[in-house]
Amino acid sequence: MRSVVMHAPGDVRLEERERPQLIEPTDAIIRVLASSICGSDLWPYRGIGGRYGPTPKGHEYVGIVEEVGDAVNTIKPGQFVVGSPFASDNTCEICQSGYQSHCVQHQMAAATGAQSDFTRIALADGTLVATPGPPDPELIPSLLAASDVLGGGWFAAVAAQVGPGKTVAVVGDGAVGLLAVLAAKHLGAERIIATSRHERRQKLAREFGATDIVEERGDEGAARIKELTGGYGAHSVIEAVGTKESMMEAIRSTRPGGQLGYVGVFHGEELPIMDMFSAGINLHGGPAPVRRFLPEFIDLIWNRQINPGKVYDLELPLEQAALGYEAMHTRQAVKVLLRP
Amino acid sequence: MRSVVMHAPGDVRLEERERPQLIEPTDAIIRVLASSICGSDLWPYRGIGGRYGPTPKGHEYVGIVEEVGDAVNTIKPGQFVVGSPFASDNTCEICQSGYQSHCVQHQMAAATGAQSDFTRIALADGTLVATPGPPDPELIPSLLAASDVLGGGWFAAVAAQVGPGKTVAVVGDGAVGLLAVLAAKHLGAERIIATSRHERRQKLAREFGATDIVEERGDEGAARIKELTGGYGAHSVIEAVGTKESMMEAIRSTRPGGQLGYVGVFHGEELPIMDMFSAGINLHGGPAPVRRFLPEFIDLIWNRQINPGKVYDLELPLEQAALGYEAMHTRQAVKVLLRP
Repeated sequence: MRSVVMHAPGDVRLEERERPQLIEPTDAIIRVLASSICGSDLWPYRGIGGRYGPTPKGHEYVGIVEEVGDAVNTIKPGQFVVGSPFASDNTCEICQSGYQSHCVQHQMAAATGAQSDFTRIALADGTLVATPGPPDPELIPSLLAASDVLGGGWFAAVAAQVGPGKTVAVVGDGAVGLLAVLAAKHLGAERIIATSRHERRQKLAREFGATDIVEERGDEGAARIKELTGGYGAHSVIEAVGTKESMMEAIRSTRPGGQLGYVGVFHGEELPIMDMFSAGINLHGGPAPVRRFLPEFIDLIWNRQINPGKVYDLELPLEQAALGYEAMHTRQAVKVLLRP
Repeated sequence: MRSVVMHAPGDVRLEERERPQLIEPTDAIIRVLASSICGSDLWPYRGIGGRYGPTPKGHEYVGIVEEVGDAVNTIKPGQFVVGSPFASDNTCEICQSGYQSHCVQHQMAAATGAQSDFTRIALADGTLVATPGPPDPELIPSLLAASDVLGGGWFAAVAAQVGPGKTVAVVGDGAVGLLAVLAAKHLGAERIIATSRHERRQKLAREFGATDIVEERGDEGAARIKELTGGYGAHSVIEAVGTKESMMEAIRSTRPGGQLGYVGVFHGEELPIMDMFSAGINLHGGPAPVRRFLPEFIDLIWNRQINPGKVYDLELPLEQAALGYEAMHTRQAVKVLLRP
């Protein structure tokens, strides 16, 4: 089968590899129908904080179940399934509290890589959610988005306690930031301030529900957000970049007692504790527990209430995965969908 | 009048200074009946991150109102009042949301210093709360504790979402940490793990409601707290020290999705964002909005439901303030009460 493998920064190849086999009785093998490139895949692509040596890529996927292990009870061959990046048993105390991304059996769901014809999914019963039936093909991008990037934006909005009457600011105009705008709109935010200098992304942010756009960044961005919120700062702020600068912008954009949801993945940077302390804000974030939200996502997408698939502005066959990485790296594409 | 002035690290003197006068029409002058030395006063005493040059000290105080400005309406001369370290108008949007320590008119309440015979209080109507009448003298230490240190511990417990059925861990055995134990008990925590190597402090922690004591520190302390909580970490963790080591211990002691309340005052240290991110926890903290809790504190103390004054284990006349600083610096005293 074919699989996308990253060999070194900037070096992504499609290779023939052995089709994964069931190892644990809780595993499933799925035939991938669509996968995508994640913003976090760009870090090692850019040579920052990633694993080196040949690494099979991809943790955002939808597909058809081919085969399941003996201990898999709810997931059945033939089902169309949406997964999560992290495997979870969905039964431990941590999973039951809604933090499946920190399951006591924590591991990557698709260790063999999901940018591939087939992939092996760990803890299939806890990790995968089947759709009510075979989806309308037009729903596939949205279901694929549900497998990770929507979960990131949604979790950030929930972590930022977005709700009716609240003003929300979203720092970052990547796919996660844009989907945080969508989530904020769905969760009833009164006003949604998106940050972007990029015309197409601004347009998508407005389609998803943004009411204001801020083009400034860093301290200037925070000052502008404060200006737009009566000098107080936003009630809810979402950090969807993962740099010290964006985190500081987010902290400074949040009013005292307000809530910051952060889902950008950081790389070795440090935060001045005193700045965080002085702000007097609530912070919540980390790897999104996508699995918590999957049943709701599938339902909302199935009923055409949300359309997160709009973030995909480039669709490529698996053979052109390298082009997809380059397009996201250069910000020519917001989000790339790969079809085997 | 006499006033405690810090000239340099380790150099605290009682001096004759002019009695403060009303400046703003929102000011009050109070005759101080008791003040105390705060853990945060020890930082400049130790030469860390403080102001230098002669500085009048003290921001924890109770006293009798002597005089009020023309714009002061609710606070009256003759009342016994408990203050907050930070002045607040208690009417702005931030105060109304319970974050008076971040009032839009933010300033120190007692800029002239409260370790003094008299002090001037800014925004008296918003900052001070009068007791129902002259207090029984035995209540004075507890009312004094309410003016800051109890607020710190209490806010930390509220920020850590302590409640029935929860396991709480408190990192730090200073007065704030000990009073966080008291707050956790009052808020209904099922199990309270205190951290201390100090026999007298352990005893006081148990009196306040601690069910377990951990003597280990840092990563070992976190490992021990995890061991005591089924490997998950505590639901609610309180950081009441203010160093990178204690903050990392607190982060590592909190279960994913759990809540960390932090009130230790940091000094220039930095936190690895990725460690905070990976933990998947909620964090809330900062300068405690003591004013939010003052009416409830006074009520609980007045009705003998809590006795936070027990943290004072050394009472000195103002003349011996320097001895008080030294006793707290060397950890011979938990908390020092000064009487003019």
